[in-house]
Amino acid sequence: MSATKLRVGLLGCGTVGRGVVQLLDRERDRIRERHGVEVAIERILVRDLEKARPGVDRQLLTTRATDVLDANCDLVVEVVGGVHCAGAYVRRAIANGRHVVTANKALLAECGRDLFAAASRRGVSIGFEASVCGGIPVIRAIRDGLAADTIDRVRGILNGTSNYILTRIESDGLSFAGALRLAQECGFAEADPSLDIDGEDAAQKLRILASLAFDEPIVRGSIAGIRGITREDVLQARDRGCVIRHVATAYRVSGGVELRVAPEELPLTDPLSGVRDEFNAVVIHGRAAGEITLIGRGAGAGPTAAAVISDVISMRSTST
Amino acid sequence: MSATKLRVGLLGCGTVGRGVVQLLDRERDRIRERHGVEVAIERILVRDLEKARPGVDRQLLTTRATDVLDANCDLVVEVVGGVHCAGAYVRRAIANGRHVVTANKALLAECGRDLFAAASRRGVSIGFEASVCGGIPVIRAIRDGLAADTIDRVRGILNGTSNYILTRIESDGLSFAGALRLAQECGFAEADPSLDIDGEDAAQKLRILASLAFDEPIVRGSIAGIRGITREDVLQARDRGCVIRHVATAYRVSGGVELRVAPEELPLTDPLSGVRDEFNAVVIHGRAAGEITLIGRGAGAGPTAAAVISDVISMRSTST
Repeated sequence: MSATKLRVGLLGCGTVGRGVVQLLDRERDRIRERHGVEVAIERILVRDLEKARPGVDRQLLTTRATDVLDANCDLVVEVVGGVHCAGAYVRRAIANGRHVVTANKALLAECGRDLFAAASRRGVSIGFEASVCGGIPVIRAIRDGLAADTIDRVRGILNGTSNYILTRIESDGLSFAGALRLAQECGFAEADPSLDIDGEDAAQKLRILASLAFDEPIVRGSIAGIRGITREDVLQARDRGCVIRHVATAYRVSGGVELRVAPEELPLTDPLSGVRDEFNAVVIHGRAAGEITLIGRGAGAGPTAAAVISDVISMRSTST
Repeated sequence: MSATKLRVGLLGCGTVGRGVVQLLDRERDRIRERHGVEVAIERILVRDLEKARPGVDRQLLTTRATDVLDANCDLVVEVVGGVHCAGAYVRRAIANGRHVVTANKALLAECGRDLFAAASRRGVSIGFEASVCGGIPVIRAIRDGLAADTIDRVRGILNGTSNYILTRIESDGLSFAGALRLAQECGFAEADPSLDIDGEDAAQKLRILASLAFDEPIVRGSIAGIRGITREDVLQARDRGCVIRHVATAYRVSGGVELRVAPEELPLTDPLSGVRDEFNAVVIHGRAAGEITLIGRGAGAGPTAAAVISDVISMRSTST
């Protein structure tokens, strides 16, 4: 089988970008053999040319986004993060007729509708499997696996940092502050953990899942984080045979879809109750298919890179 | 958006076939709207024209397979089951240049290699999401979701009947015979339950998953069922803080892949330990993505029909 060549422009070479380069190097032969695609990274946008990046070809680096966006590529992978610059890059890539693969949940939650409309007009695709729950193929499960079914509800543990903190309090008897410190030491929480523990990160991911799962507008939403949950709350829940998890839920209501992000006390029979540490999980309820649960690593260079490249490979059928 | 019309010939109108007709009727508008595909069933092969089939248009029925196979369809859905006739039908559909969607695990386990080779030569696709774990999109997860990753191990609870029996012994203190009888009364076990409880059904599904997950030949295999597991075995496992599950595992060994199907004692930290009743689960271990667990209903008209039609919809991009 002759392989289809896919030329990729890579925007960003931080943890995820380097993960993409390294995973591609390791898997290139298998991907060519198995999927008939030869993936080649043509240019890489970085902020600092001099920084050490083991395994990354320095000749591909540039500090000018246009060198990547206007290069002769089939698709652009956006892993710079943030909304402002990333949004401008993605718009220009689409205008240039490039497919886009992005891991940027904040960007899609804020202006996904516009970007998808622009992509549709230009006849290109946007892959975003990596934007929600990293290595768990939840976007494919909803869009393709449940293509034939009406989805009534999507629930999940969408933020690994919050889940890590709650399950450390539960298992190790730590205080909230102690568990947060541990999460920061292990690299599961940022120096400023607000986006994670106040629920905004989970809400962004939930918005993306809801826009995919339902054909209805979002009519109501509420966001509560886990700040304020004490060790006593967790222990008291345990005495009632329950656990506390930070749960994001989207469900149909009159006129549309309601979103809710909040700490919930769950019985041990709930499929989300057994999800521990930094793991993520999504429970999709289809009218015909019933309840489908997906659990896995929601972040990290490996899982995110695997999701990004799976999207790149899937672009083979839309490229010529 | 103008919809692509997909004309479907349906082979078989038993539980799954009727499920396909009914789910399509319910979801047709949403599928056209969302996925741009107009799915139309043109002919249906049945054994008995007179049998009552609520919701099925009698004018589409025929007892001659050639009426379906040689009709002017884009694809053929095979849900007759069995190996001999089904294999002949699928070969003829492929020879006629039709895509095929099948829920037939026995057929794929026995002659999948030949059928996929024939399909590839003829330039058509075979969709088989429904053949393993019904409503759980595990084929897509392995083939597309983990396309970028090397898979080291696939483990699962692939037979709902065995899992139902084991968890009824565990929860209700039934004997093996009592739990089997209950499974038969609830419709989770056949009158002759050998294929399920002796492990062959799980082994067939495992072979399909292994052929998809690994690029290596199967070099060794062993199959043990759950016959012989007693209530005492289950209670003793519980005393050790464990549960007994019927586990199918495929993993890399020197020179290829080894398959094993056997009852195993699992600690409660194992993601398969919490899978109860007639549910199925698959744990995929990718080198980059880590451990991904999928849980859901592995059988039944609704989940299986949802999987069949998801494959039909995905054929839109390969049809003209």
